[in-house]
Amino acid sequence: MKTKDLAAALVGVVALTATIGRAADPLPSWNDGPAKQSILTFVEKVTKAGSPDFVPAPERIATFDNDGTLWCEKPLPVQLFFALDRVKELAPKHPEWKTQEPLASILKGDLKGAMAGGERAILELFLATHAGMTTDEFEKIVRDWTATAKHPKYKEAFTACVYQPMLELLAFLRANGFKNFIVSGGGIEFMRPWAEKVYGIPPEQVVGSSITTQFEIRDGKPVLIRLPELNFNDDKGGKPVGINQHIGRRPICAFGNSDGDLQMLQYTGAGSGARFCLYVHHDDVEREYAYDRKDPLAKLDQGLDEAVAKGWTVVSMKNDWKRIFAFGAK
Amino acid sequence: MKTKDLAAALVGVVALTATIGRAADPLPSWNDGPAKQSILTFVEKVTKAGSPDFVPAPERIATFDNDGTLWCEKPLPVQLFFALDRVKELAPKHPEWKTQEPLASILKGDLKGAMAGGERAILELFLATHAGMTTDEFEKIVRDWTATAKHPKYKEAFTACVYQPMLELLAFLRANGFKNFIVSGGGIEFMRPWAEKVYGIPPEQVVGSSITTQFEIRDGKPVLIRLPELNFNDDKGGKPVGINQHIGRRPICAFGNSDGDLQMLQYTGAGSGARFCLYVHHDDVEREYAYDRKDPLAKLDQGLDEAVAKGWTVVSMKNDWKRIFAFGAK
Repeated sequence: MKTKDLAAALVGVVALTATIGRAADPLPSWNDGPAKQSILTFVEKVTKAGSPDFVPAPERIATFDNDGTLWCEKPLPVQLFFALDRVKELAPKHPEWKTQEPLASILKGDLKGAMAGGERAILELFLATHAGMTTDEFEKIVRDWTATAKHPKYKEAFTACVYQPMLELLAFLRANGFKNFIVSGGGIEFMRPWAEKVYGIPPEQVVGSSITTQFEIRDGKPVLIRLPELNFNDDKGGKPVGINQHIGRRPICAFGNSDGDLQMLQYTGAGSGARFCLYVHHDDVEREYAYDRKDPLAKLDQGLDEAVAKGWTVVSMKNDWKRIFAFGAK
Repeated sequence: MKTKDLAAALVGVVALTATIGRAADPLPSWNDGPAKQSILTFVEKVTKAGSPDFVPAPERIATFDNDGTLWCEKPLPVQLFFALDRVKELAPKHPEWKTQEPLASILKGDLKGAMAGGERAILELFLATHAGMTTDEFEKIVRDWTATAKHPKYKEAFTACVYQPMLELLAFLRANGFKNFIVSGGGIEFMRPWAEKVYGIPPEQVVGSSITTQFEIRDGKPVLIRLPELNFNDDKGGKPVGINQHIGRRPICAFGNSDGDLQMLQYTGAGSGARFCLYVHHDDVEREYAYDRKDPLAKLDQGLDEAVAKGWTVVSMKNDWKRIFAFGAK
């Protein structure tokens, strides 16, 4: 190699290091590649003073799906494990459940039969197990459950089965003046009790599905009672609605893993100025699970096509992530 | 005066100055007195490291009613002026309004007749004038209106008819690590376009009443359409519900001016640890308006009794505030 070539090569290496490195790598669990680079490029161009794509800090809104995007949603969404445990606990007080679907099938151990009723069955299960107490009582129930319940495959707390690369991404965005929000089809009050500790996302930055609550004075104390009635379904077209309702600004970046997130990504991507949309693609059957176009609960089909058509980032968990989970992290 | 007495007096003055003064007075538009002192005492005890009442910054949630608490709500709530102007603007396209109450009476200039229908009439008026466009279009309509509309008595922009002492209070709390939220019966999308500039409260910290929105792809663009249907009434018992839904934490202090705020103050006051509840009492007929127990739209009756019974702070606008409005502020 001639001296001139060596010098050119060195300049190239230095430039690359300056882009990806910047003192310490903010995304150490991400392999170098187009996915990681697309994140770094986006964050740099919206935060660098004088950049044509600069976005003032208050407008740096990032929205994240939860199930399958921030934590593991297989073999079942975590909230479903919670609901099933609640059924067992509450069943002795509800003899009528023995003849009432989907609860009857669940009590017989026939989960597949219970789920045959589709979304309606899941809603019935949630209303039966998530209502009838005050919001404070429900928070304690969630706290107690998450403190002991374990993932059936990894034998770790569900709240430890969160994706280490996504924790790094949350921290990286926060360090760059972004405000991170969860926008999940899951229950808002099911996520809030632990989201701050696990993700650094405070309760007021959690958006999710909810049941109706009602203000009452009980025994002289003002309380909010959880009623067995759906208030808001924060999924699919509900995600942009929930974003507008809670945040009141269009996100500049959004992160999901299924068709249930597609409308959130479309809404985010359609804003003016620089935008960033990312899908986490579950293609790592060895370290986690592999599912996409045909999954019954978390299908990624239309979203995958649209990501390709629109140039959104698609993260291959298998190739783009050095490690998957936070548990065991040093 | 003996030297010893003089020294004792000086110590007293110094202590008082340390409490109220602290370099510059953070609440210069507040007269010294129990109301101002109650605020300073509360903020000091929840923020001082080692205080038995210390509250970590993320839990320092403050909620403020808007109409009559942060800005003037007389002779009519500002959003009602907005709706009336919208009726005039839209009427040519709606010949059917000529026979449809409350719009028919409004078009005849008979506001009293229109309001005879009570809350239902006001809701009909809002649904007729606040729906049928995208959220982006509505935001522009609100921005354009607030840029030109003026208060009939003060001849200033409505957004200038905000209370200077409350602006100072918002800034004082913010400087002490509090997160300020608006929790108003008014429309969430009517407040967000100007709340950040006027109050320093970003859109995601505004909670209010809302109509239903729906996600659609129109001409290839994802939009949210505002439908003529009430989604949430953020008033009275709705305020704690809205707080729980949006914030997910119980406030440690709350500020209102009518019975519509009572449940918010009850809910706030019932939390454990130090709490602070405050009513702004409109008793200054010369500089603003005087109204309380018998007001048809913003009654302060049960709230006034409960404030006395529970030792909440009641601010006399006449006696506790040196100046009322932000307009003309130097």
